[in-house]
Amino acid sequence: MTNGKLPNLRIPGPVPLPDDVLEIVGSQMINHRGPEYADMLDRMTANLRTVFMTTNDVYFITASGTGAMETAVVNTISPGDKVLAISVGVFGERFREIAEAYGADVTKLEFELGHAADPEKVRETLKGMDDCKAVLFTHNESSTGVANPLEELCKVIHEESDALILVDAVSSAGGMAIAVDAWGIDVVATASQKSWIAPPGIAMVTFSKKAWEAYERSTTPKYYYDIQQYEDYLKIGQPPFTPCLPAMYAIEKSLESMVAEGIETVFERHHAVAEHTRDGARSLGLELLPDEKYASNTVTAIKLPDDIDGKEFLSRVRTEFNVILGGGQKSLTGKIFRIGHMGWVETAHIDEALEAAGRTLRVMRG
Amino acid sequence: MTNGKLPNLRIPGPVPLPDDVLEIVGSQMINHRGPEYADMLDRMTANLRTVFMTTNDVYFITASGTGAMETAVVNTISPGDKVLAISVGVFGERFREIAEAYGADVTKLEFELGHAADPEKVRETLKGMDDCKAVLFTHNESSTGVANPLEELCKVIHEESDALILVDAVSSAGGMAIAVDAWGIDVVATASQKSWIAPPGIAMVTFSKKAWEAYERSTTPKYYYDIQQYEDYLKIGQPPFTPCLPAMYAIEKSLESMVAEGIETVFERHHAVAEHTRDGARSLGLELLPDEKYASNTVTAIKLPDDIDGKEFLSRVRTEFNVILGGGQKSLTGKIFRIGHMGWVETAHIDEALEAAGRTLRVMRG
Repeated sequence: MTNGKLPNLRIPGPVPLPDDVLEIVGSQMINHRGPEYADMLDRMTANLRTVFMTTNDVYFITASGTGAMETAVVNTISPGDKVLAISVGVFGERFREIAEAYGADVTKLEFELGHAADPEKVRETLKGMDDCKAVLFTHNESSTGVANPLEELCKVIHEESDALILVDAVSSAGGMAIAVDAWGIDVVATASQKSWIAPPGIAMVTFSKKAWEAYERSTTPKYYYDIQQYEDYLKIGQPPFTPCLPAMYAIEKSLESMVAEGIETVFERHHAVAEHTRDGARSLGLELLPDEKYASNTVTAIKLPDDIDGKEFLSRVRTEFNVILGGGQKSLTGKIFRIGHMGWVETAHIDEALEAAGRTLRVMRG
Repeated sequence: MTNGKLPNLRIPGPVPLPDDVLEIVGSQMINHRGPEYADMLDRMTANLRTVFMTTNDVYFITASGTGAMETAVVNTISPGDKVLAISVGVFGERFREIAEAYGADVTKLEFELGHAADPEKVRETLKGMDDCKAVLFTHNESSTGVANPLEELCKVIHEESDALILVDAVSSAGGMAIAVDAWGIDVVATASQKSWIAPPGIAMVTFSKKAWEAYERSTTPKYYYDIQQYEDYLKIGQPPFTPCLPAMYAIEKSLESMVAEGIETVFERHHAVAEHTRDGARSLGLELLPDEKYASNTVTAIKLPDDIDGKEFLSRVRTEFNVILGGGQKSLTGKIFRIGHMGWVETAHIDEALEAAGRTLRVMRG
């Protein structure tokens, strides 16, 4: 990211885009009801299924990631439905708030910030619940840099219930493996500006047969996020509503690149750069926020020493080194900083960010 | 639009973008929680108010135009509220469907396709309604090329009721005058890919004090479109959810250009190119669909002669002349074609489109 004066943007999304993607983002508009769009949508649908290792339906929706989470909720849950909402941070809370906003009867299960969800605690909670209709949680909690053990959680949920599994994978999908069919996930929600190397604007969801059965029963009011509209229009190669073309163009390219590279290789690459980031943070004498066993492969959350003013730290790194780091959110404000490493990222980007952080800490401590 | 092999895209949105805007659309991502975004949002908010001639709140939401319409409904209407939905075509129907989806008690008032809403019929209907909470309608019905008499409609509604006025101005705002304060409009909904010379991805709404009072009473469930979240974050110069940056960048530029040019001049320019389009259609011996008094300044709907196969016509114009025209929607499919002339448009674009249409018709008729 040393092209000219542009900063090294290392927040956990929007991710920086390489020049060839930016050129595609700036392509001319096309008719979203014409044959060119239909061809693009067809290829994207097939490739997105490949990345999610699924034969389930997949849809592209013009919205932020929160829109994908809302799509998961309003299409499968009815007011009064018993729902288990597992949270390990800000985004897990948001998913729960959406379910609450739409009238679900929510049982909360929260874990300490920096920790992952414990599958055995999930098992206990489900044993104590009667007729749980859905379990919802965040795969990769970008606010704490924790990746929940998705496969294990799905296994336990299936063992203990018939509940739908709704997963916020906004900040993991495309960078970490999500085997939708093998793990039995009913809805996965993600968004373009994360590992997909695209600008914000498009939300994506997978939708299982069991999710469709829940849809048929759902009495939650909906229109823009009504998944039936997306399905009806997909059959004629169109979106129900005018789609965010710049993000669609970029996702199309990314999906092609990911499938060509091989998705296992993409996930391994994310793992390697995450390890490099964690090693680098430790070599600066810093401590990671998350339990290392569950440290995320797309974002690293690093504790700030107690004597450092977090706001000043971020501001100095930005103005003196042209590196944009993520701060802490809500109760973690000023206590951590975060380095995003999803999508297009090279070790040089990380080294530059870590060096900026290290030098700033040394200067601030005198 | 003769730059290389790119088609002359003359659908009523997404509008084609000039090269300097495409370059801005393809700009690098920025931190949407940083100072650069806050400055941009601040300028855009001020300029959008200028275009809408209002001191009301205005918000930018990552969604299609239908998302803006849903925002208008879910924030102001409660289930069971009596609502008058006026429709002159597909988009008026959509607005009504959204209100119905969220449980409003809807009274329908429909006008024949090609005709505008008659203010006196609206008056009569309101006189017969008790406690109408909101009147909703489309300003510019792009499916029929009809612009409803917005000022007159608002006047009648205010004379006969205390109802909120919710206006779908997706395809008119930015190209046709909407004096939000003078005409007393509570919510205006629009979207980036129309007269705003930007790609799809951002919905925009204005929100009045009276709309806020309705918000306080509203029991409709909502989260992504909950306007309070946009207000809370606007105070700290941020969006609640990751915004569609490419569309924001383009709207920022367009708003600056519009304010610099003078909004009256922008509207006059749209009127002139619309007149040019209508004259051109007539000189081909074709008839306009709309009552000419209410013909839209952003899209012209032209009747196809009875002996012409509309699908073949559009396909020939596209493949033989590289001109993309809009077709008819729903019951008008095959019966009309539409030429978009909003945003960046020159008479040469229109002449090329009309010539393609004229030559195709001559060939098809032998």
